[in-house]
Amino acid sequence: MRKQASRRSIAPRRTRTAQKKAAPYELYYWPSIQGRGEFVRLALEEAGAPYVDVARGKGDDDDGPGMTAMLRLLEGKAVERPPFAPPFLRSGELIIGQTANILLFLGARHGLAPAAEGGRLWANQLQLTIADLVAEAHDTHHPIGGSLYYDDQIPEAKRSAALFRTQRIPKFLGYFERVLHANRSGGRSGGDHLIGARVSYPDLSLFQAVAGLTYAFPRAMAALAGDYPRVMALHARVAERPRIAKYLGSSRRIAFNEDGIFRHYEALDQGR
Amino acid sequence: MRKQASRRSIAPRRTRTAQKKAAPYELYYWPSIQGRGEFVRLALEEAGAPYVDVARGKGDDDDGPGMTAMLRLLEGKAVERPPFAPPFLRSGELIIGQTANILLFLGARHGLAPAAEGGRLWANQLQLTIADLVAEAHDTHHPIGGSLYYDDQIPEAKRSAALFRTQRIPKFLGYFERVLHANRSGGRSGGDHLIGARVSYPDLSLFQAVAGLTYAFPRAMAALAGDYPRVMALHARVAERPRIAKYLGSSRRIAFNEDGIFRHYEALDQGR
Repeated sequence: MRKQASRRSIAPRRTRTAQKKAAPYELYYWPSIQGRGEFVRLALEEAGAPYVDVARGKGDDDDGPGMTAMLRLLEGKAVERPPFAPPFLRSGELIIGQTANILLFLGARHGLAPAAEGGRLWANQLQLTIADLVAEAHDTHHPIGGSLYYDDQIPEAKRSAALFRTQRIPKFLGYFERVLHANRSGGRSGGDHLIGARVSYPDLSLFQAVAGLTYAFPRAMAALAGDYPRVMALHARVAERPRIAKYLGSSRRIAFNEDGIFRHYEALDQGR
Repeated sequence: MRKQASRRSIAPRRTRTAQKKAAPYELYYWPSIQGRGEFVRLALEEAGAPYVDVARGKGDDDDGPGMTAMLRLLEGKAVERPPFAPPFLRSGELIIGQTANILLFLGARHGLAPAAEGGRLWANQLQLTIADLVAEAHDTHHPIGGSLYYDDQIPEAKRSAALFRTQRIPKFLGYFERVLHANRSGGRSGGDHLIGARVSYPDLSLFQAVAGLTYAFPRAMAALAGDYPRVMALHARVAERPRIAKYLGSSRRIAFNEDGIFRHYEALDQGR
């Protein structure tokens, strides 16, 4: 973190913490898709944490200096601990890669996860399960390989997507429905969130996963939504959180599109 | 953790910590494959931590009470924080799921990761990148879906495996080669490990990934190994660590087989 010694020395503890965070984070991610970067953006937005979305140029300038900086860090010759792929987050001296790992870091810094070990691990566990869902959603349109075009694997994608829609979406959403139910009925005062009585970063990520599934598979999700009322209600509640609602209505929120993880291809949302 | 109050109160600090850990962990994983459970087993073995591999019956008794216990925890009706899938680890009151999350926990408890935040996050980041490699290795033989047999997706598997062998293995191993190089040439006294001068759980996991790739794709790996001397040397060194060597020679190490993540299918190790 960048030091702000003159202010830190006089501010009370909570303010000092906030001001330590005031130096903007640098988020590095592909500039034209939500992708995995979106899970990080949502956490930063909910936290009200200042950040620069480095690779996003102004307007359509996606080959600008930010992209160059991102690719240089990925090449990693001058980086002791290079990331394998975007997204990664720079926080002072730290360069942190892997979406769930970035969220582990941000969750602890910004009160978006329980502080105790058990709760922190549980948040990470839920996030990794959401990450598995997201990876499978991606693979529906690229079952053979990410280096081929979708057009080169359409029959395979149709087979893969049918299994995903009929087996995997129910399995994952059924799991999160159970978790929401257990949190509601457990001893803790929960119910409206995945963990305890407050929002945590897995809530934001589950919102994003449901938003993406609904974009990619509107027909399947319309048929399924009634089976997972708690999941759908969580999705709606997160969208209405003041900072999230403001973000979703801003130009910072990139629209879903067919270059990202969640893609709407009509052929993948029907048949079996 | 199970309490051992009478001993803890008189033992010096380091011993108290060790004795807190003396209650065996319970590892829950499918009993007949290495799979993702193996990454946890390797950490437990290197740590010298007592554990029970719950679902593994005696001999070939894979439908024994251990399996029943595992499936009951997965159904999750009596579990407040149910895991989505094996492996999961029980440590006292905690039930911890997701491989990388279990290793995050064990790494901190058993000195298999740096204690400082930056190093801890870096270990987790490396582990998640290894997890991505492992998932892609799995998907080579199940590109369309995990619920279909391999025999139902052989042509697709051949296309997928060819891309994996020629593009993805080099990308991942090249990355870890760079990380090992950067650790060797960095200010820290490193070189023989991914992080700093001591073994950490990502070293064990990279060993396992290389072992699995070599089993599944012997021809491809024989052609590639020379390009990644540091990765291959790390693999050899981990295999020679006393506790790991003892484990690998024991009946606790399940042999690679064609039910696991790393499968040797001749058709997937040739052509392009």
